[in-house]
Amino acid sequence: MISEILKKQLIGIVGADRYKDDIETIIAHSYDAYVVEAKADAVLFPLSTDEVSQIVSLAGANDIAITPRGEGTNLSGGTIPLKGGIVLSFSKMNKIVEINTPDRYAIVQPGVVNGDLQKALAMDGFFYPPDPSSFPFSTIGGNVGENAGGPRCLKYGVTADYLLGLEVVLPSGKVIRVGSRNVKDVTGYRLTSLFCGSEGTLGVITEITVRVVARPESVRTILAVYNNLDDTARTVSDVIGSGIVPAAMELMDKVVINHVEDDAHLGLPRQAEGILLIDVDGEKSAVERQMDRIIEKARANGAIEVKEAKNDEEREELWLARRSAHGVLSRLAPNCMTEDATVPVSKVPTMIKGIRAILDKHSVKAGVLAHAGDGNMHPVITADARDREEMERVEAATAEIFELAASLGGTLSGEHGIGLAKAQYLPLVMDENTIEFMTTIKKAIDPKNIMNPGKFIF
Amino acid sequence: MISEILKKQLIGIVGADRYKDDIETIIAHSYDAYVVEAKADAVLFPLSTDEVSQIVSLAGANDIAITPRGEGTNLSGGTIPLKGGIVLSFSKMNKIVEINTPDRYAIVQPGVVNGDLQKALAMDGFFYPPDPSSFPFSTIGGNVGENAGGPRCLKYGVTADYLLGLEVVLPSGKVIRVGSRNVKDVTGYRLTSLFCGSEGTLGVITEITVRVVARPESVRTILAVYNNLDDTARTVSDVIGSGIVPAAMELMDKVVINHVEDDAHLGLPRQAEGILLIDVDGEKSAVERQMDRIIEKARANGAIEVKEAKNDEEREELWLARRSAHGVLSRLAPNCMTEDATVPVSKVPTMIKGIRAILDKHSVKAGVLAHAGDGNMHPVITADARDREEMERVEAATAEIFELAASLGGTLSGEHGIGLAKAQYLPLVMDENTIEFMTTIKKAIDPKNIMNPGKFIF
Repeated sequence: MISEILKKQLIGIVGADRYKDDIETIIAHSYDAYVVEAKADAVLFPLSTDEVSQIVSLAGANDIAITPRGEGTNLSGGTIPLKGGIVLSFSKMNKIVEINTPDRYAIVQPGVVNGDLQKALAMDGFFYPPDPSSFPFSTIGGNVGENAGGPRCLKYGVTADYLLGLEVVLPSGKVIRVGSRNVKDVTGYRLTSLFCGSEGTLGVITEITVRVVARPESVRTILAVYNNLDDTARTVSDVIGSGIVPAAMELMDKVVINHVEDDAHLGLPRQAEGILLIDVDGEKSAVERQMDRIIEKARANGAIEVKEAKNDEEREELWLARRSAHGVLSRLAPNCMTEDATVPVSKVPTMIKGIRAILDKHSVKAGVLAHAGDGNMHPVITADARDREEMERVEAATAEIFELAASLGGTLSGEHGIGLAKAQYLPLVMDENTIEFMTTIKKAIDPKNIMNPGKFIF
Repeated sequence: MISEILKKQLIGIVGADRYKDDIETIIAHSYDAYVVEAKADAVLFPLSTDEVSQIVSLAGANDIAITPRGEGTNLSGGTIPLKGGIVLSFSKMNKIVEINTPDRYAIVQPGVVNGDLQKALAMDGFFYPPDPSSFPFSTIGGNVGENAGGPRCLKYGVTADYLLGLEVVLPSGKVIRVGSRNVKDVTGYRLTSLFCGSEGTLGVITEITVRVVARPESVRTILAVYNNLDDTARTVSDVIGSGIVPAAMELMDKVVINHVEDDAHLGLPRQAEGILLIDVDGEKSAVERQMDRIIEKARANGAIEVKEAKNDEEREELWLARRSAHGVLSRLAPNCMTEDATVPVSKVPTMIKGIRAILDKHSVKAGVLAHAGDGNMHPVITADARDREEMERVEAATAEIFELAASLGGTLSGEHGIGLAKAQYLPLVMDENTIEFMTTIKKAIDPKNIMNPGKFIF
């Protein structure tokens, strides 16, 4: 609980208009894209690192929890203020500080929306590769907190791979700057990566320097259609195993295809059991040849049809199908849980088959999406969280999916994080010593556990 | 000091033939490629993680320092057993555990030589991108400890970018496994990166899983020759700033060119003030076009000659010039110190000019090499460490080079690490809070400071 004295002190830092404890604001910040809800005592909207530092110092002195928050799009409950306290919203720290394409970096405040950075970079012919499906509204700060991925991370890598430097307010209120703007830098411990994907449990990120990349000259996009899911999955492991690296290789099963088609009328093949959406980018002639090889492999693995986008409009339409899938599915029931188990790509056929069997066994409603090229599976489960019996089946299925992933040498999360959603499953992929080691790190940095408490770490 | 009792216990773990404290072995493990020397009390050659764990436990209980060591090629004093104790040599833990190209990973013991992994991968048409110049004899364990780079890291990234998983023996003797074999994995803190570049100060790495990549279809290599160093440097910032990403872009100045030519008679242009060695790789037609654009830019920036390697033999010869440079220079004097300051690429012309001016001002003998494409400068200073007056000039010049790098937004090290060589300069690029934070991490993991003590961290 925030005392009246503390409230006054906090208002002293941000002013009354950026300290909110009205019920509308509290409720608006009590949920994210996962199913759990919890109310903070106050939501603060800082404008500067200095304000953040003062807020965190005060919170520490008063044992008040801090939950940093971007736009709350994460799927693992990472932004739920489970222990109340303060939600720190970065919606007003949303400036692009610098774009420097000659030196291939950009500096942003954490509240900058990924899509806005993309737009700004596009004017210079550059882009920032990590592209979570939420990119039009998720923030770079949130992307860093969750180490977000996305379709084109298959070729380009995830958020951590583009992080050059961070400014962080530690739980003590002290400000540190880790990394730099240099693409190559081995000066001291590699601490940018420690904070990336730490889900707000180690400190509050207040400035981010990312590496940016020149836009590829050419893109080619196809949709390959299959009569069965096995052929779809085998195409994936065959293409990737041969050393080809498409920019993206997305799989959708029949459930997804039909719900998207119901909603968006894009002309998707409703009878198909599986489709692959594949992008190749780079220099024009290289793209031509690479995609020709992929099409050959798709056909050899049983694709009954390969459609190619003839222009940017058609490409956008194909991608719209993929991008809208999560939203469409999430409207089918009161709640939607997107799982994120990831396996080595050779195991994709086994994993896809296994996921379907598990979902059917427990009569769980779900469509299967996947960033298939990097083995990153997204069964999107729809259910009503108020229906206890249904939720028990969902939980049983989820547990079995994670067990299957672990047994195939996979892991719990490729890009969504652990948060609340998967903390209980950590022992499936991490032994006791390693979990204890993570706790050692957390305790050393945040001994009072004020940073986003109750998530995957103590 | 290792007591007789402890010696017996250690021999109990590894056997008498893998516990060495004869003076020859001690001296052979008292130096690396930096200038400082220090003697361990014993050198142990473990064969397994279990042996390492037992050794580290005993060392911890007896307050004995542990310095892990691969082949001792590092340039920053990272493997010097400054506080005596035990050197843990990984020369007998040198097995390639698994190569799995369909899933794009390889698992190795730390003592595997980088070049040996390359050879094994080449048979499957794959490679492991990080290529420090020492790759024919440096180990993957050492590469991870230092977060090694290399010429083609310009396009492909450094060691940390290829690290999927690690097995680590903590200072307590406990064994943890961080990361996995999945290319995408955000399960818990990103701890592989914390150990990468930690220079053996946090634990002993006993197994390494790296990401591997399909070999490019085609490579094109040119040597661009310049009448002045300014034009050479401007070509670099122009090419990179335009968004082109060569596989490698290496700069050598007149001093380097002439010493290499004296030694190897490769027909290098002795009159040139600067040369650039540039590789482009990828799909054949893309390589053609990209290199054509680079040649155009090289000429526009004043290249007086552009030679192209016509075949693999000629390519090898050009690269031999670059690869032999460090060895050739190091034979010119009793000691050789390779600096490693790195700047944003737009600052390469200013930095090169500044380095030359500083070296001349202090009458320091040095050739300038650079992984220029990523701003990673390597002034190779030759001197006699016994000549105090000369060493004072070397130190003054080195300090000024780091100050210049810092003033240009650069950093102390791009790929060689901090170790002994640069610890004193950390405050140039890192504030007090950030250094204190690194110390917090170190103390939490290694409270007795047994892991490679006396390096960049307390």
